[in-house]
Amino acid sequence: MFELRKYTAPDFTEPRFVNAPNAVLEPAPRDGVAPMTYHALSIFPEYFKIDGQWLLAEESRMDCVPVYENGKIHVREFRVLKQGDLVVTGRTECCEDGIFVHADGFTEQKAQGDVFAFRQGRSRETAFSRDYDEIYELLKHERDHGKIVWVLGPAFAFDYDARRAMEKLIANGYAHAILAGNALATHDLEAAYLKTALGQDIYTQKSMPNGHYNHLDLLNRVRYHGSVAKFIEEEKIDNGIIYACEKYGVPYVLGGSVRDDGPLPCVFGDVYEAQNAMRDQVRGATTVIGMATMLHTIATGNMTPSYRVMPDGTIRQIYFYCVDVAEFVVNKLADRGSLSAKGIVTNVQDFVVNLQKGLGL
Amino acid sequence: MFELRKYTAPDFTEPRFVNAPNAVLEPAPRDGVAPMTYHALSIFPEYFKIDGQWLLAEESRMDCVPVYENGKIHVREFRVLKQGDLVVTGRTECCEDGIFVHADGFTEQKAQGDVFAFRQGRSRETAFSRDYDEIYELLKHERDHGKIVWVLGPAFAFDYDARRAMEKLIANGYAHAILAGNALATHDLEAAYLKTALGQDIYTQKSMPNGHYNHLDLLNRVRYHGSVAKFIEEEKIDNGIIYACEKYGVPYVLGGSVRDDGPLPCVFGDVYEAQNAMRDQVRGATTVIGMATMLHTIATGNMTPSYRVMPDGTIRQIYFYCVDVAEFVVNKLADRGSLSAKGIVTNVQDFVVNLQKGLGL
Amino acid sequence: MFELRKYTAPDFTEPRFVNAPNAVLEPAPRDGVAPMTYHALSIFPEYFKIDGQWLLAEESRMDCVPVYENGKIHVREFRVLKQGDLVVTGRTECCEDGIFVHADGFTEQKAQGDVFAFRQGRSRETAFSRDYDEIYELLKHERDHGKIVWVLGPAFAFDYDARRAMEKLIANGYAHAILAGNALATHDLEAAYLKTALGQDIYTQKSMPNGHYNHLDLLNRVRYHGSVAKFIEEEKIDNGIIYACEKYGVPYVLGGSVRDDGPLPCVFGDVYEAQNAMRDQVRGATTVIGMATMLHTIATGNMTPSYRVMPDGTIRQIYFYCVDVAEFVVNKLADRGSLSAKGIVTNVQDFVVNLQKGLGL
Amino acid sequence: MFELRKYTAPDFTEPRFVNAPNAVLEPAPRDGVAPMTYHALSIFPEYFKIDGQWLLAEESRMDCVPVYENGKIHVREFRVLKQGDLVVTGRTECCEDGIFVHADGFTEQKAQGDVFAFRQGRSRETAFSRDYDEIYELLKHERDHGKIVWVLGPAFAFDYDARRAMEKLIANGYAHAILAGNALATHDLEAAYLKTALGQDIYTQKSMPNGHYNHLDLLNRVRYHGSVAKFIEEEKIDNGIIYACEKYGVPYVLGGSVRDDGPLPCVFGDVYEAQNAMRDQVRGATTVIGMATMLHTIATGNMTPSYRVMPDGTIRQIYFYCVDVAEFVVNKLADRGSLSAKGIVTNVQDFVVNLQKGLGL
Repeated sequence: MFELRKYTAPDFTEPRFVNAPNAVLEPAPRDGVAPMTYHALSIFPEYFKIDGQWLLAEESRMDCVPVYENGKIHVREFRVLKQGDLVVTGRTECCEDGIFVHADGFTEQKAQGDVFAFRQGRSRETAFSRDYDEIYELLKHERDHGKIVWVLGPAFAFDYDARRAMEKLIANGYAHAILAGNALATHDLEAAYLKTALGQDIYTQKSMPNGHYNHLDLLNRVRYHGSVAKFIEEEKIDNGIIYACEKYGVPYVLGGSVRDDGPLPCVFGDVYEAQNAMRDQVRGATTVIGMATMLHTIATGNMTPSYRVMPDGTIRQIYFYCVDVAEFVVNKLADRGSLSAKGIVTNVQDFVVNLQKGLGL
Repeated sequence: MFELRKYTAPDFTEPRFVNAPNAVLEPAPRDGVAPMTYHALSIFPEYFKIDGQWLLAEESRMDCVPVYENGKIHVREFRVLKQGDLVVTGRTECCEDGIFVHADGFTEQKAQGDVFAFRQGRSRETAFSRDYDEIYELLKHERDHGKIVWVLGPAFAFDYDARRAMEKLIANGYAHAILAGNALATHDLEAAYLKTALGQDIYTQKSMPNGHYNHLDLLNRVRYHGSVAKFIEEEKIDNGIIYACEKYGVPYVLGGSVRDDGPLPCVFGDVYEAQNAMRDQVRGATTVIGMATMLHTIATGNMTPSYRVMPDGTIRQIYFYCVDVAEFVVNKLADRGSLSAKGIVTNVQDFVVNLQKGLGL
Repeated sequence: MFELRKYTAPDFTEPRFVNAPNAVLEPAPRDGVAPMTYHALSIFPEYFKIDGQWLLAEESRMDCVPVYENGKIHVREFRVLKQGDLVVTGRTECCEDGIFVHADGFTEQKAQGDVFAFRQGRSRETAFSRDYDEIYELLKHERDHGKIVWVLGPAFAFDYDARRAMEKLIANGYAHAILAGNALATHDLEAAYLKTALGQDIYTQKSMPNGHYNHLDLLNRVRYHGSVAKFIEEEKIDNGIIYACEKYGVPYVLGGSVRDDGPLPCVFGDVYEAQNAMRDQVRGATTVIGMATMLHTIATGNMTPSYRVMPDGTIRQIYFYCVDVAEFVVNKLADRGSLSAKGIVTNVQDFVVNLQKGLGL
Repeated sequence: MFELRKYTAPDFTEPRFVNAPNAVLEPAPRDGVAPMTYHALSIFPEYFKIDGQWLLAEESRMDCVPVYENGKIHVREFRVLKQGDLVVTGRTECCEDGIFVHADGFTEQKAQGDVFAFRQGRSRETAFSRDYDEIYELLKHERDHGKIVWVLGPAFAFDYDARRAMEKLIANGYAHAILAGNALATHDLEAAYLKTALGQDIYTQKSMPNGHYNHLDLLNRVRYHGSVAKFIEEEKIDNGIIYACEKYGVPYVLGGSVRDDGPLPCVFGDVYEAQNAMRDQVRGATTVIGMATMLHTIATGNMTPSYRVMPDGTIRQIYFYCVDVAEFVVNKLADRGSLSAKGIVTNVQDFVVNLQKGLGL
């Protein structure tokens, strides 16, 4: 059955930890600006020696800075730094500056073969059977013991079966948050409202007369009602991804982009507020699955560390999948070097329908 | 339920047919050379007026020439022409030279929407749900009433589930011929012999020690036994695509290429003999599915017309699918303009597993 | 030499125009909401009959609505509509509702062959020699008589020659505005500041020690100085794309995205403000070239009509190029059906260096 | 200026060489079959201890077997083995079985940074400026001191500038052999004969009336004349790639494939004879450049070792470039692990025109 790898914390009684100096803290010189020699975080667990104690950054984020405040290490984006925040400085990783990057916490049981396989790129010719089987087990575990965050590109709302499969995953507890853009929600709601996506029937693919108006009509109608919830109620919408989110109380974050029409009322126009809202969802995530969106998957990948400190204090790994028909996208994510990031090269329509069937939905 | 489109033959009592001249026949000046103004065939049904009678080319092939012999129109590749063969000349399509290209034989019932949708390119964002449903129905029909020819690229033999799915399709009567290259058969037999593909376990993906020898060992062993059948018997092979072909008497044609190792004993070293053998299988085909091989799928597409004259004399359409993760490949086939050619953009691993499940195997 | 196609305005003395009803105007029911039967604009010139006069929408934008105000037709995004704005309604295109979409204004001289060629998709196998020659001539013309807007993805700032080529195009008057994101500017300024992009030397590709800090250091430093201009001055930056924009007074608009680090001080966090700023630059554009960014190129394509009303009242066509290594991106743009949109499938590094050499810079 | 890396031969006086056993030779049990424990060669220099002497395999080929004959190590494909050939057995690499694989012969001067960069995949976002500069220097050196073998896909004969660039490279001594398929030669000769490729003007891209006959007419005409040389003479062909090969005596090998029309008279129908002819050209190659053909580039890559024994007995490295618009193709080659194999992701049209300009032609 499914089993998480065990986390091995560093042994802080080793001389290198005992003899390490305290980390040097420097105040941020201005709002939004770090001191010159700030330390930037990786996706791995990192420990900082403060007053002789090694403190873990509990909610980490790559390329952000550690700030010491109220006895804890907080991880902040540059843009939210306040003048005077005490930032850890130093660019070493092995205790030299009171900083320890623990890249091997989950890896002790790995065999030689694993290591080699991991480093290979994924392509259309990679065998994915075992990945599917693992994902089925993982999702069953996470439904009750973790938090599954989906990152959705717009495309698979175009397809009848894929849209229905995603709806079922949500209805059955396999989605705890959804991150997407204006387009995914617009296409999905157009399908619910008019049975089309960009004017084409989502099953027969027939183009409707004047169908290029459909997504604009949908947007205009939701804007008229003032909110997606009101639109769903008033227009008696009864199917789809967004509908299921509303019905089952699954939070969704829609980040805006420069190519949006509309937008829908709940879309974040300010992308940095969108980032904040996305990271709020990622803070508890234990599995993240990005599908057919390079922009949102990389954005989410950047804010997802390789580990999670659970409410009971234990530390577990985070699973991260990137599914796309293009190797370029899949490997772009994998380059970040996460142990747990895996790429799957296929059309996300098939992927999500496979999950539905594999989970018996 | 599944229903074929009806074929509407031309009405040869129309004045344009009645008043048309006879087609002009000219002898081939040399072996392998057509007269300067030869007519070349399309994928559509074409009729030729000979001695006042309109004769259909019954087993057509794009870019080949019509030869009149023994009262029938034969369709020959340039390379097999014999000096003196009577070749139809003329490059018109509408009776001007006694030639009629019947591009609309299957299209009368089409609605406006269909026409438009047909002309669009297929991409990763096309909705494929309906295509899958149609393929399930089509294959059930063709299993008993048609001939299903598969064109297989090497890649999906790398994957445990996909390889097993293809094996089941063969075992259950859904494959009447297989066209492929040396690599597909080599990878599949390596999986049966050593459980690996290019040295990686086809399920766990673990690299075996010295695994890069595995495909060479397989090739050497089959060559030692002298034939695939002998190898299967002596080495007690009991699974896989080629095994299933041998067990269920499904013919397979393996065409050689300049990148082959080995090759396996039954591979055609001469590609034009391979073409002949492939076309022999295509002659009766009513459905062709090309998966993850641009080379073999285009080769097969070039020799597959849009129609088939059935043993009872009726004329039906041929279905042609091209499945690949790359739009470039899918659209390259679609450019040929066949009514029945459809592209599906996905990883063929998922495609073939979907077929297995959709057919209840 | 280079010559623009002539625009043929509709002949409004024709009966269909004379007999057409006036367009029906309806007030917007709320801020940001159009009346139910609003008309949405295309990329073509559109005329509206108001009080018996046919008025052209002078600065059009696809999927936006025509608003009649102060005797003119304004084109507004839904999100900027004000309650009570008088919106043209009706979804016909040929005078039935007082609306005329003039799709053929530039096409009269086209030969048959052109029409056919235009409809084909572009691929890696398309011949691009003539496109290059046309672009050289076009850019020479536009430098003095038009407005050239570039849309830049981040990638080509990674390359030494490409970055220098773009700098030269700006320095020599071939760029009148640049639209991009935070990443392009960040990579370009990192190259200027530290000679690297994401820590790799932009010429030798060698990874610098701790190079993964470089883009963060750059961002932190610019944020410290408070503006790009100040950073350039204080840090004595003397090369690159952004440097050239600042030096030669070429406006650049940087739109934010959810995957941004930093960001740079001048990046628009609100994407709809970014859209407004982009459209302000597009309003005068006569040639747009999108390179290696699907997001920004489609965003710009959506706001670029096929024609421009010049200050002297003449109407000319707008040229739109989309350059990308992926057919998917190139054809996504071409699907919008613009006469003047052309895709070129290549690495933008080569494309921009070719332009530099072809223009003799 | 351009400089080759120096080769450092193993020091055979080291104990591991001195104490190694002789390699074990076993006779091939049948024609075309190796003994069970045959050794297979890599791309690296390999030495075999025979009667106490370490012999280098001078003309190696990956995945083939070493045969000892007449005091030398010959490298043979399985298919050409003769019963009784003495094959080296053993699958170790470090003297254990009298076999030494010398993977580090050219690498001693490498700095740390190089090593890391080498292992990364190449993508559209890789910076290629330095690669271009190196290729210019390399080609100038190889023109007079090496042998440059080009592997050409069909596509770039579609483009006016690219075709002319290749012609100039040949005319100026930068091509010593060309490996391709029937399609490249057919398209190129169609361009020379009718100024089109598949019926489209290679400059204006206009489709000619009945242009789909053009490649068939070309094939038929060459077949009529009986040879390409005769065709060129009789039809007064004066431009193009194949024309230049004939004029300047540059050998070209055309391997057949199952998708060929025609074929041209000089095409090898038997792909294993084609392999032999290709390898004959590769035997002296010092630089190989594969462009826009996965099939032929991989075929050539498989038969190209990483080193060359020059006539004076010195050993030098072989340069191998793979240029393609698709990362999948480029990285497939790079996976073979050659030190000298480099991928460039771009449209080969641009690549070859860049070479022409960079070499001042």
